[in-house]
Amino acid sequence: MAHGGEVLLSLFIVFVAAQIGAEIAQRLKLPGVVGEIAAGCVVGPSLLGWVQPAQALDVLAEIGVVLLLFSVGLETRLDEMKRVGRSAALVGVLGVIVPLALGALWAHGSGFDWIKSMFVAAAFVATSAGITARVLQELGALRREESRVILGAAVIDDILAMLLLGVVTALQAGGELRIGHLAVVLAEAIGFVLIIGLIGPRMMRRSSQWLDAPINPLSPLTLVLALCLGLAFVSTQFSLAAIIGAFLAGMIASETKQRETLEHQTQPLLALMTPFFFVMTGSKVELSQLANVETLLTLALITFIALVSKFAGGFLGAWSMGKRSAAIVGVGMIPRGEVGVVVASLGLAAGVFSAKLYALIVAMSLLTAMITPPVLAALLRRHPVKTDD
Amino acid sequence: MAHGGEVLLSLFIVFVAAQIGAEIAQRLKLPGVVGEIAAGCVVGPSLLGWVQPAQALDVLAEIGVVLLLFSVGLETRLDEMKRVGRSAALVGVLGVIVPLALGALWAHGSGFDWIKSMFVAAAFVATSAGITARVLQELGALRREESRVILGAAVIDDILAMLLLGVVTALQAGGELRIGHLAVVLAEAIGFVLIIGLIGPRMMRRSSQWLDAPINPLSPLTLVLALCLGLAFVSTQFSLAAIIGAFLAGMIASETKQRETLEHQTQPLLALMTPFFFVMTGSKVELSQLANVETLLTLALITFIALVSKFAGGFLGAWSMGKRSAAIVGVGMIPRGEVGVVVASLGLAAGVFSAKLYALIVAMSLLTAMITPPVLAALLRRHPVKTDD
Repeated sequence: MAHGGEVLLSLFIVFVAAQIGAEIAQRLKLPGVVGEIAAGCVVGPSLLGWVQPAQALDVLAEIGVVLLLFSVGLETRLDEMKRVGRSAALVGVLGVIVPLALGALWAHGSGFDWIKSMFVAAAFVATSAGITARVLQELGALRREESRVILGAAVIDDILAMLLLGVVTALQAGGELRIGHLAVVLAEAIGFVLIIGLIGPRMMRRSSQWLDAPINPLSPLTLVLALCLGLAFVSTQFSLAAIIGAFLAGMIASETKQRETLEHQTQPLLALMTPFFFVMTGSKVELSQLANVETLLTLALITFIALVSKFAGGFLGAWSMGKRSAAIVGVGMIPRGEVGVVVASLGLAAGVFSAKLYALIVAMSLLTAMITPPVLAALLRRHPVKTDD
Repeated sequence: MAHGGEVLLSLFIVFVAAQIGAEIAQRLKLPGVVGEIAAGCVVGPSLLGWVQPAQALDVLAEIGVVLLLFSVGLETRLDEMKRVGRSAALVGVLGVIVPLALGALWAHGSGFDWIKSMFVAAAFVATSAGITARVLQELGALRREESRVILGAAVIDDILAMLLLGVVTALQAGGELRIGHLAVVLAEAIGFVLIIGLIGPRMMRRSSQWLDAPINPLSPLTLVLALCLGLAFVSTQFSLAAIIGAFLAGMIASETKQRETLEHQTQPLLALMTPFFFVMTGSKVELSQLANVETLLTLALITFIALVSKFAGGFLGAWSMGKRSAAIVGVGMIPRGEVGVVVASLGLAAGVFSAKLYALIVAMSLLTAMITPPVLAALLRRHPVKTDD
């Protein structure tokens, strides 16, 4: 009764490629995630072509990154997040303004009008928290003060990027910029994060005893998984990334007495699902579009702009934490990952991006994702733990 | 940065519907799986229409049932399977012959020629091990002698059903029946099962020490998950169901020293993924096609034939185990589940099945899947454990 053979083969290839990539990376003293993304480049359409784009694989990737940020949320305490609120806000805001300004300058210099330049610059803006979160988790650094600043800033960053994208798509489509409408969208998104983030944990602390009387040993897990999928969906309805909702769900779940059990039970889920996210991220690099010297030089330039602008924003925002911590925060904010890919796709659909510019932006996003982990790991290892406990 | 909102909503609905269905079923003293399938009927296109067919959901369902049979394999020892080999073979063979004969008689009586009747009858044949395996697992009955007979028979049943489908599709297409070719296909499938089933565990026992020195605590899990996906794919290449390969992978993994850790780590994976299988199974019932008295009577008749014929085959095959055990085995073989759906889809594509016959066969398959769990659970609870340890 054979069916679904090809899909199973893709699953097998993605999963095994991730393990081999992670293994090689770890032997080279690099974070495993670098190997998984590189493995995606190798098995993807650009090189071997063993894994083709497929909706089912993208859904598995999405579940993978949702579970990853959920587990990061599980290791994050609301109290500790509140303590770093001011730094996180500053990092989030400056981490949007600096890349936006430098990206727009570059695009305008390349011949785009200012409105289109803003659109291109939007692809320089949004941090993808998945890559950094995985590195912090791999190194057991999630409880460091810098990690909490990065995670908090990633939430703020996502809200601002969402707004920015709203503005540029409206301007590009020639529509009026309805400030009132944007204010409502902004208020809704901030309201969602605040309500879930502040009230959720309190409700959970109260219902902790009710959770303690489960019908079967997995009930708390299924309950929080439902919460995770639910909030991931709801956050997309506020135009935020699904991972923001998943992160909040994890933070809520971390207030229960079952936190350690949940952390334990989440590990096998991450082992199965996150490889799909990182391998599929890597598989989206289109190497063929970049196969000439001029394009490669442009790629080097925009990657440099993306790196420096985000680092500068994060570094300045976290200045009060001291130079070393500020550097860690700056580097942690660098990865654009799949968020840059999403903006580029929108740009392609809107006719602003040529196929080459699309490939450039995608490649830049993924390069930032590949460059960050080793640098971040080196910085974290060099500077011993700094927690504010 | 919103994307994939609708998919997340589907995931959330399927997951939550499964939990609610299972909860209600358990309060009614029914196995949870009945509630999950029923929940699928409710949220599927027939009633609420909240979950529409989608390739991504089917892939998640496939991963769910693959992991389920993998975990069943983990709880199954090769030595114990060997001891019940003869009974299992007899149950497998008679469990194919009796439904085939009665199904063909009914189809011929309904006006089909003999070749088409054989095709229709093929949908009466193949047992879907997933439903029974889940009930046995829910009741902690996997180590009973009857359970091992059922699981062994399900493997043999799948090989025979695969052959039968090869024969009827060839005959239906007007092609010659190439006995030599069929013999090769049969030999390959049996060879695959024997080689993996007999040599795999031995190799694993030897490499157990190597597995004991893992680089990270999850390495044994990722290794056996890769094995599971790999063998699931390979078994589809021998025209067998993916779950046969997954079951063999589980049996192989059960020979390692990490068996208990692996069983433990597999639980959260099942909690996340198996709901997709059972809910999607339920969602495939097309109630609208069955909305008249005549059709419902026909449905009752063919469901009765499917139940009685499979029960009789299993009961006779397991006769030597005593009446009570034989009854448990007979009932355990009844579910057709998604396998009947696959045969019906082939029949529809080949032009043998009308839309109504298709709906009838699908509904029959799913009814057998819904009727079995409560009956099997009642029988298992009434007759105390029988193991041959």
